[in-house]
Amino acid sequence: MIPSQSALLTDLYQLTMLQGYLAEGMEETAVFEFFVRKLPDRRGFLIAAGLEQALDYLETLHFNDDEIGWLARTKRFDDRLIDYLRRLRFTGDVDAVPEGTAVFSDEPLIRIVAPLPVAQLVETRLINLLHYQTVVASKAARMVLAGPGKLLIDFGLRRAHGAEAGLLAARAAYIAGFAGSATVEAERVFGVPAYGTVAHSFIQAHASERESFVNFARIQPANTVLLIDTYDTLAAARMVVELAPILAREGIPIRAVRLDSGDLAALARDVRRIFDEAGLRDIRIFASGGLDEDAVAAFTGAGVPIDGYGIGTSLTTSSDAPCLDCAYKLQEYAGIARRKRSTGKATWPGRKQVFRRHGPDGRMAGDVLTLADDPVAGEALLAPAMRAGRRVGPTETLETIRARAAAQLARLPEPLRRLESRPAYPVEVSARLRALAAEVDRRTG
Amino acid sequence: MIPSQSALLTDLYQLTMLQGYLAEGMEETAVFEFFVRKLPDRRGFLIAAGLEQALDYLETLHFNDDEIGWLARTKRFDDRLIDYLRRLRFTGDVDAVPEGTAVFSDEPLIRIVAPLPVAQLVETRLINLLHYQTVVASKAARMVLAGPGKLLIDFGLRRAHGAEAGLLAARAAYIAGFAGSATVEAERVFGVPAYGTVAHSFIQAHASERESFVNFARIQPANTVLLIDTYDTLAAARMVVELAPILAREGIPIRAVRLDSGDLAALARDVRRIFDEAGLRDIRIFASGGLDEDAVAAFTGAGVPIDGYGIGTSLTTSSDAPCLDCAYKLQEYAGIARRKRSTGKATWPGRKQVFRRHGPDGRMAGDVLTLADDPVAGEALLAPAMRAGRRVGPTETLETIRARAAAQLARLPEPLRRLESRPAYPVEVSARLRALAAEVDRRTG
Repeated sequence: MIPSQSALLTDLYQLTMLQGYLAEGMEETAVFEFFVRKLPDRRGFLIAAGLEQALDYLETLHFNDDEIGWLARTKRFDDRLIDYLRRLRFTGDVDAVPEGTAVFSDEPLIRIVAPLPVAQLVETRLINLLHYQTVVASKAARMVLAGPGKLLIDFGLRRAHGAEAGLLAARAAYIAGFAGSATVEAERVFGVPAYGTVAHSFIQAHASERESFVNFARIQPANTVLLIDTYDTLAAARMVVELAPILAREGIPIRAVRLDSGDLAALARDVRRIFDEAGLRDIRIFASGGLDEDAVAAFTGAGVPIDGYGIGTSLTTSSDAPCLDCAYKLQEYAGIARRKRSTGKATWPGRKQVFRRHGPDGRMAGDVLTLADDPVAGEALLAPAMRAGRRVGPTETLETIRARAAAQLARLPEPLRRLESRPAYPVEVSARLRALAAEVDRRTG
Repeated sequence: MIPSQSALLTDLYQLTMLQGYLAEGMEETAVFEFFVRKLPDRRGFLIAAGLEQALDYLETLHFNDDEIGWLARTKRFDDRLIDYLRRLRFTGDVDAVPEGTAVFSDEPLIRIVAPLPVAQLVETRLINLLHYQTVVASKAARMVLAGPGKLLIDFGLRRAHGAEAGLLAARAAYIAGFAGSATVEAERVFGVPAYGTVAHSFIQAHASERESFVNFARIQPANTVLLIDTYDTLAAARMVVELAPILAREGIPIRAVRLDSGDLAALARDVRRIFDEAGLRDIRIFASGGLDEDAVAAFTGAGVPIDGYGIGTSLTTSSDAPCLDCAYKLQEYAGIARRKRSTGKATWPGRKQVFRRHGPDGRMAGDVLTLADDPVAGEALLAPAMRAGRRVGPTETLETIRARAAAQLARLPEPLRRLESRPAYPVEVSARLRALAAEVDRRTG
């Protein structure tokens, strides 16, 4: 139906350029790096994510017979290109920042070292894979910081931009600290724990709300979460109080209720009071419906008795910042450093590394962007990920990545842990890197 | 790698509810409708899109052995559900608004009539498919209206939310009037014409900009579009003037240049003047780089000499409004109308139809939302799309859909064709529909 693995998931100009490179014999080693130029207004940090899918893409990259046949039939390309694509595999080196790491502007998330045509071709899908998961992990991390100790669940497959987005969002949110996702396939594919309650249609399809509650409890005796806002939330809460002892006699505890509309703060307080007065202190309150990190922070700040949140659209579309100003740029070709000087889009040339310093409290204190062969004090962020087209070391588990993200969030400077994070984290550009940029400018200009 | 066809692309609660419906013998006919509750602030209309993929999903829906095996191993579900899912096919009826049609708030884009468990299960992926393409087609239509006569190309695969989003965005933008997309796979899969120029890396990889221009022209003699902003745009434009007669002697016309950074309006005017003074009036100017409909409208209004636009991120993420407040709701079960009364999310019950009136000038004059069996004057928007699980009539071609969208844009009331469209288009709710809602409320409440 909708292919996700095709090597044709690329821009036409990549193929046009490849034909040019081959015609001119330009197959020497190129170095490209992917980085974010400038963080969105409301992002003080990013959480790198998507590397696993990027490596998988590189490791399995090839044009199959259907794709080659179709390309040939378009008559856009010469035989040399078609033949080259038929044999193309990714045999390059990759260095990358491990998933779950906090990163900032201008810092390379990945560096590709490969023959120019190959390194060029993979641009589109690499950006596509790294950009989106980094967008979602960064958004999800804000929600995690806004609701310490709260159970956060991804509810956003339906309004994600397609199936792949929904699946990758579940993964990225889990990395950032969500407890799981409503998306069943995300559990099967990635091992992200699946969570779920019940929809309004279930309540509506029954002759009465009461009957729907009893029936739902009986089919989900170990996980009874009742949706109480279909008609009148407080009336439904009182019905829960009435049903609780009846269901308890059947051995069914009501674990939680879900609120999905109205003034969630006021309703949560009223529902909590109704339950507490009836001695039902163990029933948790779960909320959903158009929520984002600002809502979670406001509820947390006001001590609203909500125990968990289902967050959908704002998470999977990162609705306030659905994209990053990011780029995958040529930094070196045939041993010579390169840069682009376009207004507002100038890049730092050469193979780069990021060194991170930490303060005495263990918090991140500042990064230095410099050349890979110019080490400075601190922790190097980019590590070898592939050599000659093969992965270095075993695939990281999602739990490892998730633990790293949690540790990174804990080590962020305090101002960056707030939703309105100022001042910006310091990323210094080394003297050697500045000197190289000036040298490249003299040469090209 | 990342599956796009799995029947498990659904929310866990759908499966939980199905188990409940089966346990209670609730398999009678349900009617669900998908609609948008409220248009985003800067959308005066939407262009319906995604129906083809939705019908394809319904027509091919099934759980394969791997999916069934995995579900059984989770031990979350009883044998009755597993067996039901193994046999499940979509055998229902679908009525829908044809793709390319302008739609407004509360108007059903699709109506599903099927046994309750099936109609429930398909909710997540149906919304996922219809929502995103409608988001992008609606965004693209604004760009088309903002740049009459301009060549508009989708450049947005790299920052789309995954591969599926990139492909579907290319399709939706083409429906709305874009000329094509840079995404190669979108041409293979959907027949959306592929377009492309060249990237900065091509320029940078060469020893000089001049050499890169000459080489690119020789490999793309029939389609020479030169990217002139890598180092100094006006210097590069003068280089184009110098190269034009040389390339002309080789039979190569320079068709266009692309600007991708800086003050595009000022640069376009300067470049146009440089070309015109050299008698190169036929070289077109194409612009890209962070553009949206507001930029296109501003350039159009100021008479900036740009002939076409490559639009990426703002299109494929619909960055100012990446999501719609939409829902798929139960409207009838077992012959009885249903509605949800949740605060701010109340729905209109029953099987509905939209009738559209047109003024003497042929423009849309107002819609009436009413019951399907309560026809009023005007054009009915929903038409049969599937009966008993089979499509009604042949699949519409993309060209048919695109022509419909163009006709619809031409028939929009003039205020809706502006980027800040006020007043809202009138959608009236019929007296019979209001009476039914009141009746349902008395029954449930």
